[in-house]
Amino acid sequence: MAKFLTNREENYAQWYNDLVIKADLAEYSAVRGCMVIKPYGYAIWEKIQSELDRLFKATGHVNAYFPLFIPKSFFSREAAHVEGFAKECAVVTHYRLKNDESGKGIIVDPEAKLEEELIIRPTSETIIWNSYKNWIQSYRDLPILINQWANVVRWEMRTRLFLRTAEFLWQEGHTAHATSEEAMEETLKIVDLYSSFAENTMAIPVIKGYKTESERFAGALETFTIEALMQDGKALQTGTSHFLGQNFARAFDVKFTDRNGKLDYVWATSWGVSTRLMGAIIMTHADNNGLVLPPRLAPIQVVIVPIYKSNSDLSLISANAIKIKNELEAAGLSVKYDDRDTQTPGWKFAHYEFKGVPIRIAIGPRDVKNNTAEVSRRDTLEKETIPVEKLCDHIKWLLEEIQKNIYQKALRFREENTYYLNSWDDFKEIIADKGGFVMAHWDGTAETEAKIKEETKATIRCIPLNAPQEEGKCIYSGKPSSRRVLFAVAY
Amino acid sequence: MAKFLTNREENYAQWYNDLVIKADLAEYSAVRGCMVIKPYGYAIWEKIQSELDRLFKATGHVNAYFPLFIPKSFFSREAAHVEGFAKECAVVTHYRLKNDESGKGIIVDPEAKLEEELIIRPTSETIIWNSYKNWIQSYRDLPILINQWANVVRWEMRTRLFLRTAEFLWQEGHTAHATSEEAMEETLKIVDLYSSFAENTMAIPVIKGYKTESERFAGALETFTIEALMQDGKALQTGTSHFLGQNFARAFDVKFTDRNGKLDYVWATSWGVSTRLMGAIIMTHADNNGLVLPPRLAPIQVVIVPIYKSNSDLSLISANAIKIKNELEAAGLSVKYDDRDTQTPGWKFAHYEFKGVPIRIAIGPRDVKNNTAEVSRRDTLEKETIPVEKLCDHIKWLLEEIQKNIYQKALRFREENTYYLNSWDDFKEIIADKGGFVMAHWDGTAETEAKIKEETKATIRCIPLNAPQEEGKCIYSGKPSSRRVLFAVAY
Repeated sequence: MAKFLTNREENYAQWYNDLVIKADLAEYSAVRGCMVIKPYGYAIWEKIQSELDRLFKATGHVNAYFPLFIPKSFFSREAAHVEGFAKECAVVTHYRLKNDESGKGIIVDPEAKLEEELIIRPTSETIIWNSYKNWIQSYRDLPILINQWANVVRWEMRTRLFLRTAEFLWQEGHTAHATSEEAMEETLKIVDLYSSFAENTMAIPVIKGYKTESERFAGALETFTIEALMQDGKALQTGTSHFLGQNFARAFDVKFTDRNGKLDYVWATSWGVSTRLMGAIIMTHADNNGLVLPPRLAPIQVVIVPIYKSNSDLSLISANAIKIKNELEAAGLSVKYDDRDTQTPGWKFAHYEFKGVPIRIAIGPRDVKNNTAEVSRRDTLEKETIPVEKLCDHIKWLLEEIQKNIYQKALRFREENTYYLNSWDDFKEIIADKGGFVMAHWDGTAETEAKIKEETKATIRCIPLNAPQEEGKCIYSGKPSSRRVLFAVAY
Repeated sequence: MAKFLTNREENYAQWYNDLVIKADLAEYSAVRGCMVIKPYGYAIWEKIQSELDRLFKATGHVNAYFPLFIPKSFFSREAAHVEGFAKECAVVTHYRLKNDESGKGIIVDPEAKLEEELIIRPTSETIIWNSYKNWIQSYRDLPILINQWANVVRWEMRTRLFLRTAEFLWQEGHTAHATSEEAMEETLKIVDLYSSFAENTMAIPVIKGYKTESERFAGALETFTIEALMQDGKALQTGTSHFLGQNFARAFDVKFTDRNGKLDYVWATSWGVSTRLMGAIIMTHADNNGLVLPPRLAPIQVVIVPIYKSNSDLSLISANAIKIKNELEAAGLSVKYDDRDTQTPGWKFAHYEFKGVPIRIAIGPRDVKNNTAEVSRRDTLEKETIPVEKLCDHIKWLLEEIQKNIYQKALRFREENTYYLNSWDDFKEIIADKGGFVMAHWDGTAETEAKIKEETKATIRCIPLNAPQEEGKCIYSGKPSSRRVLFAVAY
């Protein structure tokens, strides 16, 4: 166990915070609730971006960039939208500083007050639909399939690194369509894309579903979500895709002429994932020895550590290590050879274990003699000695194996912590004592949903898309229900 | 000539604006001075980013992300820095909106006033050096070689798309070093990197040099720059790299223990290029037919247009076109086959010419019969018929040829518009009538520099790094000078 890491079972929140800080992923800045994403953390985010961007482009989307600022009046146009975001908006009111004449230093120049205040985007539907108004006249201008990589600001009062910060990085897709069906198809296509990204690339099993009315995005007619289970039994919403109907087109008067020459409002979707995904990766896979990174997202996939006493040993080892490094790099892997003489092999072992590097190769004088290397995998901590001529193939296979294994492990964890409950007493007990996913019947009313939340803190994470029809009684009210929904306490 | 494009010789500013808007690169948004970068423009920016990012990483830099907000007090710490940026700062003063009780709609909640105002970063030295303070204790923590891709805000009063906007996208490098020499080496390494990027990738010849004191970055001891000449005879500063000395380390109290155990302030550099580069590409290469994009940055490198009357012609042509497209894509090129039946070939020819696509391939029934294709290059508008079996090699060669040719053309333009002048009358006349680069002697004083600017609007763009020693007399004061400096009217 890493000595400076709080034990996960003793204090989960502190364990998480230790990981983020001590593995050099991120830290708080001097600005309340804003984080600095450090190079190691940012390198993981770059890999997330790169794969998502590839998936977006492969499904016909293009990138663009819209302004950081949104005029305050735009916000008021869509009633539910402003209601949802008004309480957490950073507002720009002035555009100049000046030297205070009474010598108090630099002050905001009261003469440089904006006529209309500007909101830092918490999300960009309003500014984007205001642009789309000029881009869309006819069905020939549709669909518009645009994504934006950007920073957004939501003035959160209680923040946690990656999970909830005042500023965060994300992508936001905003698409425009000629028909309701096409917009719904897009909304669902993106949930599928997010879900397969989560499972294949982040190795995180997720449940796809749609939100209840009270949990919907402000301005959406339907919100789809992917929900993952963290190791403390809480749910983390890891991506959402919204069917916005014609709400934003109405608010910004965006009409088009359809194939029959009829004027209609345009149909919309929006969807996003954020740096919160970093939190999901940490909380799904890490353990008491530190991070465990999915091979497909690890900035360093393989680290090579030389074990030596004399300098002549080192030079023999280095010759082999560099050959191995080159061969692995030629196979497209990212490899680090750490031959620093300022740290011991033991320190290096613990260091890269803590950083979640999937595979460590150690080479000592005996390995040079036998033409072998010791290969250690981060997920199971198992070691084996492999002949150098088989090493490259073995490493490629092992990275895939680790990717699959940590997914399977997370899936087993979720299955072991998913409860199909039928009694309210069991529900309360499980949610209070164990956490986890609870599949239970619900009568479909917002009142019951609110009461369950009040009494247990559990919310309906989603109505799973693949939940079978099943007659039953609401776990709280006893009223009839035709399918189970997913309850959990959420981040 | 493109009919809807203003003639470059008649109204250069309008020609530029037409290009940006009508080629779908960018447009103004509802927020004063802020632009929307549209998908075609953003695709060029993505190619710029991707190549620069590769070059940064190849020289040992890593990416990270720092907050958008800077506490007002941080700004005051470096005197020259605040002086330079205070007049153009967007200031956040509140963090919540609410419904007005008297029914005026959404207003800024006066109770949600920040204790200390936050500045939207116009550049990040202050917030970054405040973080570096915690990261650096000893020489072992150095160097730090960090880059950030981000949006920044400078509240400009007169804006022009890409060239000067209130919000823009850029990269900003911020490095920390143990010695002055190492920091200066980094500063110069980056000017070289920018310069070779400009010349090799953007096909824009640049002059490397350093700024006079009055043109330096606010807080720098030395600013290096690359300067390019636009087609209207004005200079465009296309990248800067700053040697910051120990100014920011002093302002944020960032000290380190050197190899001898002595405490000293850390040495710093910063450097950046922005979406302004988009303006440089347009104004260097475009002509009265539209954009001319360097092949290495063109989102579409080759467009294929079918010429047909009957549907049976089209299906034969398409079979050939798709084979050619696949072959070119397999060679790593980005190719579009435009077989829309809603537009004529003539419309398509003009459209892709206007969009600056480097190569157009047209295929008609006769080409199918002869197994040929008509290849047209955007830079010279020359056409030739090429046998299909030689097409892929020819296209690869031609893209390189175009890349070289537009660079050479821009270089010739610069050479033809660079004047070595020795008389003040000539200087005034050339600057007023022709524009261009003027190499002239200068006595080294800020007074002379200011007077020349006042009388002619020309500024010293830089003191070129490769300017030979040459005894002479200042073009304005007649005082002795030992080298020529570069004057021009600048954007």
